Amino acid sequence: MGSTKTNPGNYFEDFKLGQVLNHATPRTITEGDVSLYTALYGGRFALQSADSFAIDCGLQAAPIDDLLVFHIVFGKTVPDVSLNAVANLGYADVRFLAPVYPGDSVQTTSEVIGLKENSNGKTGVVYVRSTGTNQLGEVVLDYVRWVMVRKKDVDAPAPETVLPDLPEVVDPANFQLPADLDFSNVDATLSGSPHFFDDYDVGEKIDHVDGMTIEEAEHMMATRLYQNTAKVHFNQHMMKDDRMGRRLIYGGHIISLARGLSFNGLGNAFFIGAINGGSHTAPTFAGDTIFAWSEVLDKADIPGRSDAGALRIRTLGVKNATCEDFPDKGEDGKRDPNVVLDLDYWVILPKATV
Amino acid sequence: MGSTKTNPGNYFEDFKLGQVLNHATPRTITEGDVSLYTALYGGRFALQSADSFAIDCGLQAAPIDDLLVFHIVFGKTVPDVSLNAVANLGYADVRFLAPVYPGDSVQTTSEVIGLKENSNGKTGVVYVRSTGTNQLGEVVLDYVRWVMVRKKDVDAPAPETVLPDLPEVVDPANFQLPADLDFSNVDATLSGSPHFFDDYDVGEKIDHVDGMTIEEAEHMMATRLYQNTAKVHFNQHMMKDDRMGRRLIYGGHIISLARGLSFNGLGNAFFIGAINGGSHTAPTFAGDTIFAWSEVLDKADIPGRSDAGALRIRTLGVKNATCEDFPDKGEDGKRDPNVVLDLDYWVILPKATV
Amino acid sequence: MGSTKTNPGNYFEDFKLGQVLNHATPRTITEGDVSLYTALYGGRFALQSADSFAIDCGLQAAPIDDLLVFHIVFGKTVPDVSLNAVANLGYADVRFLAPVYPGDSVQTTSEVIGLKENSNGKTGVVYVRSTGTNQLGEVVLDYVRWVMVRKKDVDAPAPETVLPDLPEVVDPANFQLPADLDFSNVDATLSGSPHFFDDYDVGEKIDHVDGMTIEEAEHMMATRLYQNTAKVHFNQHMMKDDRMGRRLIYGGHIISLARGLSFNGLGNAFFIGAINGGSHTAPTFAGDTIFAWSEVLDKADIPGRSDAGALRIRTLGVKNATCEDFPDKGEDGKRDPNVVLDLDYWVILPKATV
Repeated sequence: MGSTKTNPGNYFEDFKLGQVLNHATPRTITEGDVSLYTALYGGRFALQSADSFAIDCGLQAAPIDDLLVFHIVFGKTVPDVSLNAVANLGYADVRFLAPVYPGDSVQTTSEVIGLKENSNGKTGVVYVRSTGTNQLGEVVLDYVRWVMVRKKDVDAPAPETVLPDLPEVVDPANFQLPADLDFSNVDATLSGSPHFFDDYDVGEKIDHVDGMTIEEAEHMMATRLYQNTAKVHFNQHMMKDDRMGRRLIYGGHIISLARGLSFNGLGNAFFIGAINGGSHTAPTFAGDTIFAWSEVLDKADIPGRSDAGALRIRTLGVKNATCEDFPDKGEDGKRDPNVVLDLDYWVILPKATV
Repeated sequence: MGSTKTNPGNYFEDFKLGQVLNHATPRTITEGDVSLYTALYGGRFALQSADSFAIDCGLQAAPIDDLLVFHIVFGKTVPDVSLNAVANLGYADVRFLAPVYPGDSVQTTSEVIGLKENSNGKTGVVYVRSTGTNQLGEVVLDYVRWVMVRKKDVDAPAPETVLPDLPEVVDPANFQLPADLDFSNVDATLSGSPHFFDDYDVGEKIDHVDGMTIEEAEHMMATRLYQNTAKVHFNQHMMKDDRMGRRLIYGGHIISLARGLSFNGLGNAFFIGAINGGSHTAPTFAGDTIFAWSEVLDKADIPGRSDAGALRIRTLGVKNATCEDFPDKGEDGKRDPNVVLDLDYWVILPKATV
Repeated sequence: MGSTKTNPGNYFEDFKLGQVLNHATPRTITEGDVSLYTALYGGRFALQSADSFAIDCGLQAAPIDDLLVFHIVFGKTVPDVSLNAVANLGYADVRFLAPVYPGDSVQTTSEVIGLKENSNGKTGVVYVRSTGTNQLGEVVLDYVRWVMVRKKDVDAPAPETVLPDLPEVVDPANFQLPADLDFSNVDATLSGSPHFFDDYDVGEKIDHVDGMTIEEAEHMMATRLYQNTAKVHFNQHMMKDDRMGRRLIYGGHIISLARGLSFNGLGNAFFIGAINGGSHTAPTFAGDTIFAWSEVLDKADIPGRSDAGALRIRTLGVKNATCEDFPDKGEDGKRDPNVVLDLDYWVILPKATV
């Protein structure tokens, strides 16, 4: 008999279309989190690294890294959405809508926007739109993800299938840059890259060159920092009996590593405007070394902004192999087995340079 | 010949009844420490996680986790009290007396309140009452611990045996909750648990379900963060010749892990009012996975507070075994060998819920 | 074909005498960095540990540890100076010129002050003077280092050989202590050491006793915190094919460990006035346990200060061996193979004690 006080999580039949889940554990994001994030990923984007640089760009201080906000907002959804998940299937329409500064407190709410029971009758897919807000109630992040969740009672009736209408690509017209941001005089020496919006071409591929090996302590500290409670990341006693016999690394850890590596080639990509979609195509484990490469998929102006433009980027994370040959799908359509991440997102770069 | 400039620590014959030890290394506790504490233990108690939640409870900001304060106050005593200790025998009368906020500076003073030479004439037990104060001189923590310490000179005369009178259980009348605290409108959705003071019954057992594997880097970073200098935690060159051949994990690291795990079942236990006693019943090493379960030993009102009550909890930390069967002493009186921690303490919960 | 967007670093023939390199990635140093630094090295110098102690010494708050400032200022030079380095040959004239407080933003500029092509025609030695400044433009750190850098084109003509004139020892007349600093009433109990400037003798040797074992996660987190991008520290996929088959630990990590250990014997050495020189005499790897010992080489008054004096110290870092016999060069002139660090520097201690 299990305790009646612990959180059993939700099973597929517990989710109802239109249901709103107010998630627990509001979280103040601080300079301490920023330092740990730097220690874990080695980020060098100047806007997030120095108040002085951010102030020169019109901001009040260095904003919190977009992905750190994402991981913390995401972490709150785990106990309610994915504690009984079989698989995290995808993301879409991930939009960063307001900067977060040290001292801001964020919390997360989700709405069930789609349900589809699988034909095996044992699992179903749940689509949720999750919204992170700050202490003023302003939305800082909004995104959709879908997960495959177990049914507790296989005899529970299947809900009506409803699939949400999701954009394949977020329209840059939806981007919300900080009102006080001014990218018209960015110092390319301090930023560490002479390449701005106009310097990138659609179709261009960039090998980010560097590799980063992951330790157990690192990915666990990261994932706990995000208050993400998924057991597979922390509990070796359980995972030793799993198929791989190892603790799985949180997929978001790989996204942050790939983004950190992407500085070498995309050093002025200061903001993530949106994530269009992404998949974790293979698991990663402690001891793996992560490399990354990117392809420019598209370029777009941002309505109302003459100082900044958006690049649609596809970044692939690759384990234990360098990327000078841009490992991807082969002619047979099969993905290179070393590819662990395939992320489609918009980054925002200044158009001008000093 | 050893250097005359390094700290040799105190030996049993150096301690005198009534002696006051003003410990070194005052320490400002900051948001950086809070982030590391979250990264190490994954705490989710809402009051310590978010300024916004703490402000809704009448406080000025999220207070520092009680155990983080304990570890830092405790760490200062190690160079003077336990550098030549054979064993850390016990704690009693541990009372958290004022909240600590980021920016506060704490320091520690101890008084020798008991002495007893062991019959072997080689070691003795020293009882100290240690008091942590903030930069205003306010007491934030007060506790007794006793340790077995080596004699340097076995011919040194034995002191008169004096044993302090220690409470087996701290009286909740001694709790000092923050004056501005108001638990009358706690948001059970944000806190992550619908269970408040009135929902717990004496005798109730809770399996906290989750497990957390420990890495060397984690426990060493934690113990250094507390400026605890006990050599056994850090020096593998020395410990390789020890009986176990491994670095020992600081017992307080296990207490913090167990407290972190206890969120799943005790999510509204926002404060530790007092620790009545505790023992580290077996050593832990890197690679161990820690689980925990708790039993409600008692319930008490807190004088002068209608919004909060106290639960006396016994939490057992267990290594490399799940707790659905509540591992404890067997019928033969022998403790389950997987049990590594047996902690008796009071937690403070709101009585009301929104 | 490599990407044209990534940083190839400079090769020997790219450096010109008098050339100024404005390095990228300004960095705000925060309380979060301080906490991580404590967690990584366990520092106990009271001045850096507590605002309360620093305020009692006339400062506005606890200053950032000198070596943390050094590592961050140094890290910025790596992409421009040593990305194609074969070896980091030495430091000289390292002077700490103004305290850095949490919230200050630092950036780094270097000037090429010497060049010498090696006789093999494949490499050359580059001397740079690097200067770290804060957000007000004040110089906080100034130092010289020289590195051996590969030529890209072995047929590139050799530059005229110019060797800078470097002091073997920094003159204490060049020290700049904070204007508001007052060491005339330092509390020896809180500082943790009764030994002040007058208590040390030239020629005195101190075994710092304690040992600290290093984990991969620790040195990588440290080195990323410093935004130091040297590949050898992070990329096991590359290093597995290296001669040692291991990731190399950043030499600065060993300096910080040795400085942390030196508290036990030099507890009042609150500031590093200058580093005269240093060499990393053998590589270190995860799993190594670091010990340290020091010798007092000289003593000096500091012009204009009656409350503080300077000790010239030589600290040796030693791996996997204790230091009670002060491992060093033998009678045959050969260095003990366990010695990994030989650092010559000035520390600043109060003259008076309370």
